[in-house]
Amino acid sequence: MNLLLFTADDLLAPGRLAVSDRRLQHLHTVHRARPGDTVRVGETGGLMGQGVLVELDRQRAVIEFSLDTPPPAKLPVTLLLALPRPKMLRRILRSAAEFGVESLVLINSYRVEKSYWQTPVLQPGTVRDYLLQGLEQARDTVLPAVHLEPRFKPFVEDRLPALLAGRRALLAHPRDDAPLPPTDNRDALVVAIGPEGGFIPYEVEKLLDSGFEAVALGPRILRVENAVSSVLGRLLPAP
Amino acid sequence: MNLLLFTADDLLAPGRLAVSDRRLQHLHTVHRARPGDTVRVGETGGLMGQGVLVELDRQRAVIEFSLDTPPPAKLPVTLLLALPRPKMLRRILRSAAEFGVESLVLINSYRVEKSYWQTPVLQPGTVRDYLLQGLEQARDTVLPAVHLEPRFKPFVEDRLPALLAGRRALLAHPRDDAPLPPTDNRDALVVAIGPEGGFIPYEVEKLLDSGFEAVALGPRILRVENAVSSVLGRLLPAP
Repeated sequence: MNLLLFTADDLLAPGRLAVSDRRLQHLHTVHRARPGDTVRVGETGGLMGQGVLVELDRQRAVIEFSLDTPPPAKLPVTLLLALPRPKMLRRILRSAAEFGVESLVLINSYRVEKSYWQTPVLQPGTVRDYLLQGLEQARDTVLPAVHLEPRFKPFVEDRLPALLAGRRALLAHPRDDAPLPPTDNRDALVVAIGPEGGFIPYEVEKLLDSGFEAVALGPRILRVENAVSSVLGRLLPAP
Repeated sequence: MNLLLFTADDLLAPGRLAVSDRRLQHLHTVHRARPGDTVRVGETGGLMGQGVLVELDRQRAVIEFSLDTPPPAKLPVTLLLALPRPKMLRRILRSAAEFGVESLVLINSYRVEKSYWQTPVLQPGTVRDYLLQGLEQARDTVLPAVHLEPRFKPFVEDRLPALLAGRRALLAHPRDDAPLPPTDNRDALVVAIGPEGGFIPYEVEKLLDSGFEAVALGPRILRVENAVSSVLGRLLPAP
């Protein structure tokens, strides 16, 4: 937790907040914080700043803070991802927030097991918790939007065209396509990554027909989470 | 498992192998394989090719195969990594093999907890198992070398100079340094990545004195495993 994120619910008064949940545990066990220590804080969706621990015990931490710093710019990237298995989904939600993608669309594919759509990880509160963990790691306050699209064809035919308008769309594919092209940090991108085993030919064709360019990540077949971080890593802006 | 890896111990005769361990389970539960199916096989450290499942039951799988394809080229990269916590270490071992790094050096740092050096994950057999999982994923047969360096100063002073000879050395650092420079795929690189919280100033100084250039991954603080895959992803060759 490189940033303690809070919402209006945590405020005792303007400039004064209290936490008593996972964030309190983290202050004790990971930061080994003491009263008087400074902590970086951020308002979810808002500014970041510094705080001082004016009270700290087993029940709660009270922090007096001021906010002055905007969060880092988002990557102008929409990640279109075949729904991964739950264990991997958790890590990918954290990573998507950590890398700063603007939005994440989880779509169906022939090779996505139906049971994956039933996982408790997809409950809105749980999705939010994993995203917050990524923001806390990366020092960001702005949650990426997450959309679920459990039906491939209606999504591609009815909603994908609007999503792609004005954006460059890249389909990462472990094959002999063109390498990932250089992209300007300001290019708005949609990046699609298939399930383990890849999109089936019908799905690839539908995506290419919709305007995706097939690009290759190299000769190695990467696990989905490594494909994601490998692509997003290449798109991160220089400092 | 995109490739079934075997060693001489698995051979019944030339061109004929049997497996009865994790690989057999995987054929049943993930591949849902049937007798007569073809499988990609590779000899650990050697060539890859095709096999046919001539026998398959709960006890064992027998595969007749021939080998004709060399494994993909390694990334000419030595990854120098402050020993991560065990859970992350497992994933990073898999990823290092998956991305094809030539060697991985796990070093100590002030911010590495001493207990991490005692983890059973570091047993040679366990390290090898995780590396094999990465090779199976990426379709590669050549294990990266793994070295443990539990003492920072003797490593940096006595063994690092030889490791850096003829190689470009980059220290990834979440700060305002120069961005990761473009590198030729054939450049031999050493890439150092610190622990959670980063190398301490003394360690950074020792590494810079040894010839490392500080490079930045961007304004976001990435978890170690995302820093690793983000850097390695940028170094992957085009197909």
